[in-house]
Amino acid sequence: MTLLNVKPEIRILGIDDGHFLKGDRDALIVGTIFRGGDGMDGVISTKVLVDGNDGTQKLIDLVNKSRHLGQLRCIMLNGIAVAGFNIIGIKKLSRSTGLPVIVIIRKMPDFGRIKHALEKAGMPERYKEIEAAGKVHSLDLKFGKIYFQFAGIDVRTAADIIRMSSTHSFVPEPIRAAHLIASGITLGESRKRV
Amino acid sequence: MTLLNVKPEIRILGIDDGHFLKGDRDALIVGTIFRGGDGMDGVISTKVLVDGNDGTQKLIDLVNKSRHLGQLRCIMLNGIAVAGFNIIGIKKLSRSTGLPVIVIIRKMPDFGRIKHALEKAGMPERYKEIEAAGKVHSLDLKFGKIYFQFAGIDVRTAADIIRMSSTHSFVPEPIRAAHLIASGITLGESRKRV
Repeated sequence: MTLLNVKPEIRILGIDDGHFLKGDRDALIVGTIFRGGDGMDGVISTKVLVDGNDGTQKLIDLVNKSRHLGQLRCIMLNGIAVAGFNIIGIKKLSRSTGLPVIVIIRKMPDFGRIKHALEKAGMPERYKEIEAAGKVHSLDLKFGKIYFQFAGIDVRTAADIIRMSSTHSFVPEPIRAAHLIASGITLGESRKRV
Repeated sequence: MTLLNVKPEIRILGIDDGHFLKGDRDALIVGTIFRGGDGMDGVISTKVLVDGNDGTQKLIDLVNKSRHLGQLRCIMLNGIAVAGFNIIGIKKLSRSTGLPVIVIIRKMPDFGRIKHALEKAGMPERYKEIEAAGKVHSLDLKFGKIYFQFAGIDVRTAADIIRMSSTHSFVPEPIRAAHLIASGITLGESRKRV
């Protein structure tokens, strides 16, 4: 996708995970389909294993079986991992769905700390999957600074899509809505912060 | 609430139930908090018994314990019943929350058929609860005709709130979003029709 194609009405899928407790087998994953930063067109959901490694394939299946697939132009994730350490292979997700993937990151990650946590959890190899997602870029938005990684798209177009879809806050609307839904369903009431 | 108070930014809670199967004990209830017909501010959820009579109290608790309560100006329901024949007492819901309640109805109900179904299901007394919700009014919107009942509000103000919040389709946005979420979570992918 190039800059020329970023229309305000492009359909974006925003993905976030729900709350889970230590000992839970799986966690809820919620996807919202948005027209740019405007209205919500649909909601999709699945479950992935807590700290498992089924996240990438589950998201590929979720996207590819959706009736919204033909309209979708971009996938956005709220962070590179779901359900704890279930790391999403964003290059594979992009390749297998034919869609660009943008990872939205609220705070600059402390990679040393993540590496240490993964080693402590007996999953050192998963750090490579995080590294494989590529460089973390920053972006100044009207409401604040955010960070992002991407696959299947160039950095300028990715930044353009983030800017265009961040209409109500400093996170894109599809991610903000997915977060409200995932936390509202699993906790009974949605949490404010993304 | 009078006509003068209907501002485009008023917070509306839209409620719908999720899909359930014959034999399921309970069904998911989803509430969305909207700023008029615009952005979604929050999501709340609970569960009610299929064909039970706990719906009214569950909704009262859901609303009264929400941190959005202070901002809310109106509750909207997608039909008078949730989870099958779990009829909502809208006068009690309005009285116990201090908020107006508007029931959005897509098609003019066939009350004879509903009465018969309730008698057949051994719950003839519940028809009185439906009757207690008052007269069904109709309203012509830009996208089509809908019907409504109400409690704790006058008919003109109720119509005004419905009109103001139906920005994307012929149902108010809080109801449309609650429907997308409830069906997307319980079915894996949201259904189009409200």
